[in-house]
Amino acid sequence: MAQDDLNWKTFFEENSKPNHYDENVKLISEVCLQAAIKKLRVALITSGGTTVPLEKNTVRFIDNFSAGTRGSASAEYFLEAGYQVIFLHRSKSLEPYSRHLVGRSIFDMIEICPENIIVGEKHQAEMRKLTEKYQRYKSNLLMISFNSLSDYLWLLQATAQKMQILGPLALLYLAAAVSDFYIPASQMPCHKIQSSGGPLSLSLQLVPKMLAPLVTLWAPNAFIVSFKLETNEALLETKAKESLEKYHHHIVIGNLLHSRKVYVLLVDRNNSAPEEIRLADSELESGIEIESKIVENLKIRHDNYYANHKTG
Amino acid sequence: MAQDDLNWKTFFEENSKPNHYDENVKLISEVCLQAAIKKLRVALITSGGTTVPLEKNTVRFIDNFSAGTRGSASAEYFLEAGYQVIFLHRSKSLEPYSRHLVGRSIFDMIEICPENIIVGEKHQAEMRKLTEKYQRYKSNLLMISFNSLSDYLWLLQATAQKMQILGPLALLYLAAAVSDFYIPASQMPCHKIQSSGGPLSLSLQLVPKMLAPLVTLWAPNAFIVSFKLETNEALLETKAKESLEKYHHHIVIGNLLHSRKVYVLLVDRNNSAPEEIRLADSELESGIEIESKIVENLKIRHDNYYANHKTG
Repeated sequence: MAQDDLNWKTFFEENSKPNHYDENVKLISEVCLQAAIKKLRVALITSGGTTVPLEKNTVRFIDNFSAGTRGSASAEYFLEAGYQVIFLHRSKSLEPYSRHLVGRSIFDMIEICPENIIVGEKHQAEMRKLTEKYQRYKSNLLMISFNSLSDYLWLLQATAQKMQILGPLALLYLAAAVSDFYIPASQMPCHKIQSSGGPLSLSLQLVPKMLAPLVTLWAPNAFIVSFKLETNEALLETKAKESLEKYHHHIVIGNLLHSRKVYVLLVDRNNSAPEEIRLADSELESGIEIESKIVENLKIRHDNYYANHKTG
Repeated sequence: MAQDDLNWKTFFEENSKPNHYDENVKLISEVCLQAAIKKLRVALITSGGTTVPLEKNTVRFIDNFSAGTRGSASAEYFLEAGYQVIFLHRSKSLEPYSRHLVGRSIFDMIEICPENIIVGEKHQAEMRKLTEKYQRYKSNLLMISFNSLSDYLWLLQATAQKMQILGPLALLYLAAAVSDFYIPASQMPCHKIQSSGGPLSLSLQLVPKMLAPLVTLWAPNAFIVSFKLETNEALLETKAKESLEKYHHHIVIGNLLHSRKVYVLLVDRNNSAPEEIRLADSELESGIEIESKIVENLKIRHDNYYANHKTG
């Protein structure tokens, strides 16, 4: 534990704060303060992958597979469930509401008239629904973006700390795909790696596990949900349980790369049986998203947590 | 040379064709055939970075820094210069026209009225201009997307081969940031690399230089423009010249990571002095993009090339 403790502190010493850090922390702080006064719940949703630079003047980086589908969809359902949402997401990953338009060109959806530019007939219903939702929930949604692992960890730490004021009203939903490996600044070449040097050997270090200080120091009273993405089903439950035993947070949501849109496994730390959420084909076809069920489930668990916390 | 020859063939043997390959090649083929009949110029523009998977069930990959700014802006100027454009781009990188709206939400730009949804007053002029351009040039623009290095190389090969029919009417503008390194399929783990294994060592092989078969075999009569991105200014001209001597194509455009929006160096194979294009601060402020000047310059060079090719 002493080693881990050293590691995460060292990471922040070696990697400087991201651009616009102070402005962003101020925005986050205001959201938390206002919510605490009004006794509103706040969900921090992290979303998308983090990059790990291979060079100081970064041309190449290691990235994690993540479009931000889980996070951006969940953000909409947390908003609808009455939460204030802080959406800490990878720059250019999917965002709530606009995610529904990805892959389509707005220029194909609008029509130029002499006096006006209007949304075409066949897109009217969808655009009306999305725009109305967006405008209804916009003031409950704070969007903060990151690119690198280091930017992400700085912002995660600050947000968790600012959420302390909310006590058990705070929920952390850690859906971002965070790199396990990185190259410490001291071992990184300054300029672009030249291919004339022949085959390339990279040696990556483990990223310190930030869930440890997050649970014990930064957000000790928050309800904390983490994710485990695996490709090997046999490892799913074991890995989720190991994580809960190690970090003592509340829920691990296990999912598999190839079935993540129709199946998740919720494992909690009370040693109750893991709970499966599975979308039927018919539900999938009718446009139901598994995130609506995940958020519904977590809302109830968070209710109980909050009730126990007050009485306990 | 025999070794190189072997390498690129081996690469295609070891990496299978991307999804939708046959459909895409058919679309490309039709564009080239129609243009050849009408004696129209066709520009293949490659844009964005390529990914290199670290696992077969890909969770992690190495990526190249590239938003697709150069390629997507250039595509607009090639269209305005009268070219048919094949835009071979990284999925979700910047695209012509829509690139101007990035970072803004369409839901903030439209207004819901009882009868209609209209573009708000203050966005009217811009949206009118962009939509008109998009609609004017849409039929001259074929968009094909890729993710991985291997997908990109398969589509590059096919496009170049289909462009042969155009002879010197074809221009290749290779602005994509292509990985120099990859992990051969045979050396890749099947499942997600576990962080419990401790620090990670990766050994990457050099990607065979596809410019060699591209220039000599796939598109021997096309006008070929490649890019060199460096972070070290001292290497720029030397690396550009080395590339021309090695591959015998027509132009290398050298650029530096930190000044690429205001400065490029055009090096040709006739040993004439390199030509600089530099944007003045006043031009940058008034919204002029360096790609408009690059395309203007290349259009003249391509004219000369075409004239010489016919008489020569």
